[in-house]
Amino acid sequence: MHAPPVPRLFCFAAAASGPWRVQRMQALAGAGLADTPCLVVRADDGSRSSQAAGWVLRGITSNDRYVLRAEKTQLADRQQGLGRSAATRAALIPIRKSAAWWVLTQDERREVFEAQSAHIAIGMRYLPAIARRLHHCRDLGPGEPFDFLTWFDFAPQDEPAFDRLLDALRRSPEWDFVEREVDIRLARVD
Amino acid sequence: MHAPPVPRLFCFAAAASGPWRVQRMQALAGAGLADTPCLVVRADDGSRSSQAAGWVLRGITSNDRYVLRAEKTQLADRQQGLGRSAATRAALIPIRKSAAWWVLTQDERREVFEAQSAHIAIGMRYLPAIARRLHHCRDLGPGEPFDFLTWFDFAPQDEPAFDRLLDALRRSPEWDFVEREVDIRLARVD
Repeated sequence: MHAPPVPRLFCFAAAASGPWRVQRMQALAGAGLADTPCLVVRADDGSRSSQAAGWVLRGITSNDRYVLRAEKTQLADRQQGLGRSAATRAALIPIRKSAAWWVLTQDERREVFEAQSAHIAIGMRYLPAIARRLHHCRDLGPGEPFDFLTWFDFAPQDEPAFDRLLDALRRSPEWDFVEREVDIRLARVD
Repeated sequence: MHAPPVPRLFCFAAAASGPWRVQRMQALAGAGLADTPCLVVRADDGSRSSQAAGWVLRGITSNDRYVLRAEKTQLADRQQGLGRSAATRAALIPIRKSAAWWVLTQDERREVFEAQSAHIAIGMRYLPAIARRLHHCRDLGPGEPFDFLTWFDFAPQDEPAFDRLLDALRRSPEWDFVEREVDIRLARVD
């Protein structure tokens, strides 16, 4: 028997009701997203979502783009999975990077991402409290509104730490390449 | 006025007639593709292609994954674009890599790709004779049959050089990770 394949494609859909209640939505760069009372996260392509309900964002998990083996080993030792019972708060952060980012070569992007911005090292400091899953959108098709969707979950008492994590990233040189960013905070509906 | 966006999504469709006549199709690893007399290449998502006509493969151009700035500069100095009038021969080579490839980290993949396999250096030797465009499929969705589609064009007298290029790549350690590969050779219909 084969294990069922691990889902890679996820959708995040605005909805009138659902398991995650929106507490706050903030557009940090570029256009925001329409207000919605709730968010539904599903392992599918979003085609099941009613258009009337509002926006649907899609992303696909993929191979690592920057992490080195030594970093991956450290991350694997420290991180925990999504969905812990105490993780009743979440955030969805859709990001679009500029054309100037995408024309950089691999060495140039890694230089900005880690040597200048310590993206991996910053995230590491907040493990295991902050769990995350990165979804790529840019290569789903030419018309996607964002390049990345990151989904985070954490316990309510870890939200200030999460804010410090975001603050450190947003002050880094990598964020000079972010042209659209929305920060959506959510609470699990019990 | 804005320039129209450069197309990123392309489809390669089996067809009864079309601008490229299939000369030869060979499955080098894994399952082949059904025989077809002709191939159509279009800058769209393939939904315009009749299902009755046969298979349709889709891929999207994306940012470079391995090339460093010094290599990119060298490539840019030497390469020519697709569609030169003398380039009346073409090849479509769909490839799927193994799960073992995709769990490697960036440094490990670059090590196999260039330090061990000289993928960029080998391709460089055949510039400008062999022009190419790489399309990614893996992040279009979870159900794509291939990870990459590479389209090449060249003059008839350069086909032996193209065969040497492929031979060098196929003997390299990178090809230990190739689990499906089809080699489709085409001639332009005048």
